[in-house]
Amino acid sequence: MSNREIQLVERPVGAPTHEHINIAETERPEPKQGEVLVKLLYVSVDPYMRGRMSDAKSYVAPFQLNEPMEGGVVAEVVESKSEALASGDIVTGMLPWQEFTTADPTTLRKIDPSLGPVTTSLGILGMPGLTAYFGLMDIGQPKQGETLVVSGAAGAVGSAVVQIGKIEGCHVVGIAGSDEKLAYLKDELGVDEVINYKTDDVPARLDEACPNGIDIYFDNVGGEISDAVYPRLNKFARISQCGAISTYNTPNAQGPRMQSHLIKASALVKGFTVGDYQDRFSEGFQYLSQKLQEGRLTYEETIIEGFENVPDAFFGLFEGTNLGKQLVKVAEPSHS
Amino acid sequence: MSNREIQLVERPVGAPTHEHINIAETERPEPKQGEVLVKLLYVSVDPYMRGRMSDAKSYVAPFQLNEPMEGGVVAEVVESKSEALASGDIVTGMLPWQEFTTADPTTLRKIDPSLGPVTTSLGILGMPGLTAYFGLMDIGQPKQGETLVVSGAAGAVGSAVVQIGKIEGCHVVGIAGSDEKLAYLKDELGVDEVINYKTDDVPARLDEACPNGIDIYFDNVGGEISDAVYPRLNKFARISQCGAISTYNTPNAQGPRMQSHLIKASALVKGFTVGDYQDRFSEGFQYLSQKLQEGRLTYEETIIEGFENVPDAFFGLFEGTNLGKQLVKVAEPSHS
Repeated sequence: MSNREIQLVERPVGAPTHEHINIAETERPEPKQGEVLVKLLYVSVDPYMRGRMSDAKSYVAPFQLNEPMEGGVVAEVVESKSEALASGDIVTGMLPWQEFTTADPTTLRKIDPSLGPVTTSLGILGMPGLTAYFGLMDIGQPKQGETLVVSGAAGAVGSAVVQIGKIEGCHVVGIAGSDEKLAYLKDELGVDEVINYKTDDVPARLDEACPNGIDIYFDNVGGEISDAVYPRLNKFARISQCGAISTYNTPNAQGPRMQSHLIKASALVKGFTVGDYQDRFSEGFQYLSQKLQEGRLTYEETIIEGFENVPDAFFGLFEGTNLGKQLVKVAEPSHS
Repeated sequence: MSNREIQLVERPVGAPTHEHINIAETERPEPKQGEVLVKLLYVSVDPYMRGRMSDAKSYVAPFQLNEPMEGGVVAEVVESKSEALASGDIVTGMLPWQEFTTADPTTLRKIDPSLGPVTTSLGILGMPGLTAYFGLMDIGQPKQGETLVVSGAAGAVGSAVVQIGKIEGCHVVGIAGSDEKLAYLKDELGVDEVINYKTDDVPARLDEACPNGIDIYFDNVGGEISDAVYPRLNKFARISQCGAISTYNTPNAQGPRMQSHLIKASALVKGFTVGDYQDRFSEGFQYLSQKLQEGRLTYEETIIEGFENVPDAFFGLFEGTNLGKQLVKVAEPSHS
């Protein structure tokens, strides 16, 4: 019974490439008593995984060399030695990147596929959606009429942030890297102003798009886009520091020092990860699913197929090839 | 009746020097009905004034060219056309740098010299003390046993912060630029660990001085000292961004990007100025004067004499020549 896994074999210094990764042929594991064997259906690739490829101290343990990487997945139970789950059940959880893997059912959450596409548990109703909700609502504290700037606005998190910003009554400015993404933001998500950071003069466009300055900055990217935002912060501005993808592959990147801007504006910057809000996940889930049902929240997925393409899907995040949530479809469910 | 004033005549790009300043002979103004004529006794020089010498957007309006600079002073009323104040009263307020100047009494606060040295109204019981109190207590949120690192620790604000940190039960690490300052911090203020940023290996000393990481960073200086602190932040660390004096004269200074550190630690950075806490000044004043009376808070002043030396006293802040509050004694009170 063949199996494959995606291993980290070398820690990247700059951009991660195929050199750092090996797809190994292995054997399908046997579930122990109390465990289940699952087949991966969808694999989520996320920018934070870059951090786990390094061995620097971080909020999550680094991936181990020559071991499978891991992340959020949707999977199907194909063999159960537990009363908690039955063969055919669709589940989500953090699992190793192995086509077939065993798991303790208590680490998995069963999904009801009749409620909507199972992939939403990796996107708008999963980590990215919750990240958007807490980062904007708890740190950004949006108020009616305020100006919200979102970098990485067309990604899984950003596209949720811009919509929640609109729901909360903000003037929303989305920054992304292609005209296709800008059109999506403007036409489908109702974003007020859009900026193409690859072709526009970002500082000049920010001046146009934010005539009243910037009250909230939801930052997924860091780097030069943030450099343009900081001098335009209003008094008591809030920066929700969700990500800094532009620097993940260049950890020694230099840039203008930001402290004086923060003092001038009495501004706040708060780094966070969604795990900080674990105790409030149900609140976020409730907000997101309600807005989704009301049709006030929508989402996009970029899905590529094939387990062997998981690395390329991950690398693509740093190129910005994804619109909305980047997923890899690994297999069809056996029962469906 | 002769008078002198200190004018800004050119906006500095780098370090401010005598080139940018003119001491002009002028005439003593006449108080209008309802005003008072005051004689400056003490002039406060503070790092934030560097910002007002530039015309960039900031939290306080820039100084006007060929007009007197201004700041916190202690002064004596020498002629009163108001019932609110009498000749001989000692007052504090924000006034132009003119040896004799007129003022609206409602912009001044009368000091009772019998309660202690009048200079404390420019230091521990004035803006620097309140800055220390609110920046540490409101943003830093110190908890018993936490590690607090303070840069610019021997200055007017820093020396109050380290003492409040000790009162609140923190392990306090002070960073300053001379052995005299380190001895003061350790021997007089009871700071647990001290680091000389000019002669010590700051990252290595931080590792030694902060075996449990850094929970709170009260930052007066920015620059390379902050670069060494950020990678050592504990989960949910708080950075009180009070100043960034190391960069005030080099606004285009580059440094390592900090966003990833903030994300890894879920850390908060909050810029502020003491004016943000105007509604709570009495709370801060009460805390500071109580601790001062109890002998749990002490302070140091560096006083140079002569109105014509105000510019040098100000320039010296950027060299770190001051221990505690830097003041200039301009005149003796007429009645005392």
